[in-house]
Amino acid sequence: MNDAETIRYHAARDGRPAELDLLDQTKLPGTLTRLVCTDIDQTHDAIRRLVVRGAPAIGIAAAYGVTLTPVDLSPSADLTEAKNRYRQSIDHLATSRPTAVNLFWALDRMRALVDQSVGSVTDLRDQLVTEAIRIHDEDRQMCRSIGANGAPLLARCRRVMTHCNAGSLATSMWGTALAPMYHLHEAGQTLEVFADETRPLLQGARLTAWELHQAGIPVTVCTDSMSGSLMREGKVDAVIVGADRIAANGDVANKIGTYPLAVLARYHKIPFYVAAPTNTFDAELDSGDGIPIEQRSADEVSYPCGTNAPRQTPEGVPVVNPAFDVTPAELVTALVTEKGVISAPNTEKVLSHLRA
Amino acid sequence: MNDAETIRYHAARDGRPAELDLLDQTKLPGTLTRLVCTDIDQTHDAIRRLVVRGAPAIGIAAAYGVTLTPVDLSPSADLTEAKNRYRQSIDHLATSRPTAVNLFWALDRMRALVDQSVGSVTDLRDQLVTEAIRIHDEDRQMCRSIGANGAPLLARCRRVMTHCNAGSLATSMWGTALAPMYHLHEAGQTLEVFADETRPLLQGARLTAWELHQAGIPVTVCTDSMSGSLMREGKVDAVIVGADRIAANGDVANKIGTYPLAVLARYHKIPFYVAAPTNTFDAELDSGDGIPIEQRSADEVSYPCGTNAPRQTPEGVPVVNPAFDVTPAELVTALVTEKGVISAPNTEKVLSHLRA
Repeated sequence: MNDAETIRYHAARDGRPAELDLLDQTKLPGTLTRLVCTDIDQTHDAIRRLVVRGAPAIGIAAAYGVTLTPVDLSPSADLTEAKNRYRQSIDHLATSRPTAVNLFWALDRMRALVDQSVGSVTDLRDQLVTEAIRIHDEDRQMCRSIGANGAPLLARCRRVMTHCNAGSLATSMWGTALAPMYHLHEAGQTLEVFADETRPLLQGARLTAWELHQAGIPVTVCTDSMSGSLMREGKVDAVIVGADRIAANGDVANKIGTYPLAVLARYHKIPFYVAAPTNTFDAELDSGDGIPIEQRSADEVSYPCGTNAPRQTPEGVPVVNPAFDVTPAELVTALVTEKGVISAPNTEKVLSHLRA
Repeated sequence: MNDAETIRYHAARDGRPAELDLLDQTKLPGTLTRLVCTDIDQTHDAIRRLVVRGAPAIGIAAAYGVTLTPVDLSPSADLTEAKNRYRQSIDHLATSRPTAVNLFWALDRMRALVDQSVGSVTDLRDQLVTEAIRIHDEDRQMCRSIGANGAPLLARCRRVMTHCNAGSLATSMWGTALAPMYHLHEAGQTLEVFADETRPLLQGARLTAWELHQAGIPVTVCTDSMSGSLMREGKVDAVIVGADRIAANGDVANKIGTYPLAVLARYHKIPFYVAAPTNTFDAELDSGDGIPIEQRSADEVSYPCGTNAPRQTPEGVPVVNPAFDVTPAELVTALVTEKGVISAPNTEKVLSHLRA
């Protein structure tokens, strides 16, 4: 068993409760440790604290989380009561983080099963477990397809830049932005990667650098502020990032710091790609203006090494900490999904891609 | 006496050696503590470790540092030997940091005095102390003049963004980039300031935020990656930064992360100003391509809270850490010096400004 697997699930059996078993990403790269959730509150907390993070992984974790709802499985159990309990869990898990739409997409699939169920409570529980496993499996296939679809875009690049972590730690397998790199690496073509450290929580320095290094793909860490001069020096052939929500017109919400990279890429005439599964699209939003942006605690900025280490901003000085920014579609060279590539995205192309 | 004063100097007297008394900026904002240097090696180390930093302050500190050279002051002392000792000190201090040209400018003034000296060793020592004090005094006047010259550019702004620290902690008084804000504040017009935290060493979060907050100027800290979305949201009316070296054509070397801000400002049609004294100009360099860029230890990136705190990049993964980047003159709306304003700088305008 691979201790570095992002998400594992152990179904209930022999009287033991079901377990959602997560790689604790807050402890990387120093410590490889896992956190086991056996109830909804633990799952909610793990998502909120970024023990598990990355839009696809949040969806998978939340789907499994629903199955941890304590329900009466005896032959006389009341289905309506069980349905209410599952719906409460779904509603609660939906409050864990606001921006990544995959969370709501996965929970909506679980909710649909609850709504449709007419058998026993045990039947419903089994259906929910099966559905969560299916979401997990589909994500693996999605990673492979995004890798294959994105690889031709990067095939002529030598050095690419990415931001935050949109790799295996953000999904079930290869990730989204990193999937084309893994695909090419498997095919014998290895790119060099610049990983922005991604303040405040350093997902690039801690996670992307860690997983690419483990995979034998050469990676160099830079601070977010160094991306511009690396591009100016001709050291970056393309930028590729993931997404937390994509509006119908192709506007992309992703980790804070993505938008400046897109502006810099445009200024330097470097292609800027966004890789995400179609379940990251929110076709109900006309543009990125409607995407809710999570504002996180100022402490994440003020205490770069946690609140036990020295504070790095003066007491009394306000700090802003939006977790995401929005990159307008006009700065996106192409969107890559499991279905294919949308070049120069706009509303017509996006909606037709999603319908295809 | 103000414990927050960036640089103080206590001349030798009553048998006590001269002291260069520095606010230890590596300890801010948590601890207000001072470091006293009584020899060249301590001064070199203080500059290298950024106990004192900021192009003008480095020049002042190095000039005072020269006076700490141990020389024989007895009536029979050999002037040639003393001159050699002073020259060795000057040569050594010139190796402390490579990019800020003010360091070499100040040391060149001290070296000229050494070269010209014909009196006793005591005369030479006294002349050097007087020259260092003069450099320090001139810097105070420079800050006032830059403040006055830059204020009209910001007078119609409500919110400005700055990077790193180009304030009182980088100079003797008001600083360069922050001088117009202090000037306007004295005149009753208070701007709101966004301070980029400025990874890896957080001079914006630790120093700019601290000094503006002390002065009663409202300041908000953001990570470097947030500047782009703040501009996109219309929250930034102008960007103003300092400089470590400016080439004859107006290209600006300044703290890493300055160049992306200039690109973002251009993209958002926001003015981008650079404030620096004329001793920051290097008229011998045609363009910024010739400016040597200091590469600092990877540990500054890997250990955001010092090497006693947990490492945040994986072992074995390379990290780049250039301390500066170069912003081409075409992205600079105006340069502000103690002599006035150079709008849309180019070689002709810069050289004529320096001659004026």
